[in-house]
Amino acid sequence: MKYCQLCATPITHRVPPGDDKPRYCCLQCDVVFYENPKNIVGTLPVLEDKVLLCRRAIEPRHGLWTLPAGFLENGETTLAGAIRETLEEAGAEVLAEDCTLYTLFNLPYINQVYFFFLTTLRSTHFDPGPESLEVALFREEDIPWEELAFSVVKVTLQQYFADRRDAHFPVRMFDMSYPAPGQISATLVSSSAGHRIRSS
Amino acid sequence: MKYCQLCATPITHRVPPGDDKPRYCCLQCDVVFYENPKNIVGTLPVLEDKVLLCRRAIEPRHGLWTLPAGFLENGETTLAGAIRETLEEAGAEVLAEDCTLYTLFNLPYINQVYFFFLTTLRSTHFDPGPESLEVALFREEDIPWEELAFSVVKVTLQQYFADRRDAHFPVRMFDMSYPAPGQISATLVSSSAGHRIRSS
Repeated sequence: MKYCQLCATPITHRVPPGDDKPRYCCLQCDVVFYENPKNIVGTLPVLEDKVLLCRRAIEPRHGLWTLPAGFLENGETTLAGAIRETLEEAGAEVLAEDCTLYTLFNLPYINQVYFFFLTTLRSTHFDPGPESLEVALFREEDIPWEELAFSVVKVTLQQYFADRRDAHFPVRMFDMSYPAPGQISATLVSSSAGHRIRSS
Repeated sequence: MKYCQLCATPITHRVPPGDDKPRYCCLQCDVVFYENPKNIVGTLPVLEDKVLLCRRAIEPRHGLWTLPAGFLENGETTLAGAIRETLEEAGAEVLAEDCTLYTLFNLPYINQVYFFFLTTLRSTHFDPGPESLEVALFREEDIPWEELAFSVVKVTLQQYFADRRDAHFPVRMFDMSYPAPGQISATLVSSSAGHRIRSS
């Protein structure tokens, strides 16, 4: 940020009075421009024993498989955003009344929070949107584990297949950390199942 | 937004190619400035049969009672932010290892998502920060229901006292709607307890 978006005066990066962190400030307008994490919302769409994945037609991770997800927009709820992204990226309709919050991820190193909702596909009709090369249903044994786009997708799918064995799907929150290139790890910080497991 | 924060050229508000919503665009830099919902993170700190509340020293809702909560910062996790806000607003330390995700709220009419973590106070030592007039512990029968600052605080406290009766604290997500001034209603959209109840 170089110029004030309200008056075009050059921006000053300093700690505002009463604050403890440097912020982008316009001394002309006396306004502070805060920067905050963004939310990414998506679904894990299930049909019988299969889950839906999309192969990415865009960077990052072009050509790899992911769950349908994207940035939450102003004016929408997290669930509405997740359903919208599923329609946009996979052309897939889900049973809105059947969606439940499932996994959440904090990614503080890129200022993102992920929300995945577990849901049921309305039908086998789907159609890749402009951001997907293809959309397909996978059984557990056919998941392309080595070709998944993001760690949050891998952890969500691992949890799902483990939870499916006892038909119980607790809400879990994970902190992701990125200590070195290629080394992303997940730590469970909260589970509605009550117990806490450190995982990675 | 009137001027580009990168080059100070006047901003154009239009639908970018391949998009379906108007955005703030700089035609000079060929950059789109997206606006997204912000996260507010807080705690419900419990000590024996009491919960901690803060009386607000700032607007909005100056003088009314609230749970400690504030904007999630870049570079922090939702739980770290909730613990930080509890320390800043109440001077209260909570048992970090005892925090569990409890209530989430979508407030699409003001572009906010709330996260409250249920946790245990480390001691009766607390100290109002600059944003609080006072901090106090309340038994259920003493909660100032008519002097609570925000609907999300009221719903979270109602859920807590109901859940405490059977010592089970499911993770719940609510959509808040604001059909008319003074009329905010909460709809349960997801519960880790499995059942779905429409409430308001």
